[in-house]
Amino acid sequence: MNLANRKAVILVSGGLDSATNLAIAADQGFELYAISFDYGQRHRCELEAARNVCKAARVRRHITVPLDLRAFGGSALTDEIDVPKNRSEAEMSAGIPITYVPARNTIFLSIALGWAEVLGATDLFIGVNALDFSGYPDCRPEFIEQFQTLANLATKSAVEGTRPWTIHAPLIRLSKSQIIRCGMELGVDYGLTQSCYDPDLLGSPCGQCDSCQLREQGFAELGIPDPAQNF
Amino acid sequence: MNLANRKAVILVSGGLDSATNLAIAADQGFELYAISFDYGQRHRCELEAARNVCKAARVRRHITVPLDLRAFGGSALTDEIDVPKNRSEAEMSAGIPITYVPARNTIFLSIALGWAEVLGATDLFIGVNALDFSGYPDCRPEFIEQFQTLANLATKSAVEGTRPWTIHAPLIRLSKSQIIRCGMELGVDYGLTQSCYDPDLLGSPCGQCDSCQLREQGFAELGIPDPAQNF
Repeated sequence: MNLANRKAVILVSGGLDSATNLAIAADQGFELYAISFDYGQRHRCELEAARNVCKAARVRRHITVPLDLRAFGGSALTDEIDVPKNRSEAEMSAGIPITYVPARNTIFLSIALGWAEVLGATDLFIGVNALDFSGYPDCRPEFIEQFQTLANLATKSAVEGTRPWTIHAPLIRLSKSQIIRCGMELGVDYGLTQSCYDPDLLGSPCGQCDSCQLREQGFAELGIPDPAQNF
Repeated sequence: MNLANRKAVILVSGGLDSATNLAIAADQGFELYAISFDYGQRHRCELEAARNVCKAARVRRHITVPLDLRAFGGSALTDEIDVPKNRSEAEMSAGIPITYVPARNTIFLSIALGWAEVLGATDLFIGVNALDFSGYPDCRPEFIEQFQTLANLATKSAVEGTRPWTIHAPLIRLSKSQIIRCGMELGVDYGLTQSCYDPDLLGSPCGQCDSCQLREQGFAELGIPDPAQNF
């Protein structure tokens, strides 16, 4: 497949997964168009991480779309609800966590779809992961497949019969340590990434939310230090 | 079906179709939660019409979500591209018009889905219409069906096995005159609505864009005057 001049839109949050996802898209030879969302998340400092990650990956263009999901609330990530801390593995895998943001990946993919359509791209990359967060309905393989079917009906290409859409979710079946290993091989600088759901005002991770714990475990399994570790 | 206390989220643009769509949801007994989008459309005065339409329908709550789609452009509705005027019927039905906003209905439905999930609603209403605008891929019945399938995979209810989602598109196969007749029977005040893609600074319709022309034809077929007619 000749990907010369073939564009892809990549969702970039600034976390470990999305940095790896971006590196995979780059490795596959796509011209990179990155999109981030300023959605009222309490961990807004991830947007600075997203900028740094995109810069390091030399993306062609990076846009940050403001979209205030606080308008309807309902999640610990956007609302005045405490982020759960120090949960056991059993607690993490029992049901949908309160950090789930209603329909977030559907919303983000839809907006990325619109931008991709304007760019003439038909490839989207999203760094979702089904294993660590089995509790998030919109991180499952069947959701991604279904979104791809929708994209093929929702857009100009559906009517005009041009190249069909591919929604890439290369991390979807990997464990956190597999993701890190993959990223290391591709030269990702994890020191630029930010995973915490509830960082302090200076952006330092709490070390106790689900996301911090999963990240810590991932590096621990590989026996290597987390380069972003500063707590 | 007992709809007492059953909530629905209704997309309301302020146009003729969406006012009718809202009236149909009300007639079916749903508790009404209306959502509009401030997406950088050149016909932003439709947002005032949306407020008036929602007020007249006594919706429980109406939110307007700011989402600047000008960030990626690509449409005459959000970009510095002229809105086509005085097109013949043949021109209107030939291909996707430049007023198509990339992935707009996918984006709007996704955000409505998120709000509905927070509200505990599993019914969404969208006033799309396949006949007049056969050129818009995201106004077709197969798109709506596919979005419903996606909703049933994307959200908490998919995992928790609660009531499945229904995406209602009651106008999808109606002609403009059928829509107007339906709305008249339900008491819709079309004088509050605004359909024009390219109104002047005072909000007066141009009378020449596709949307104005289709509206005019609809009222003409019924032999009744357009109560919003002031040009």
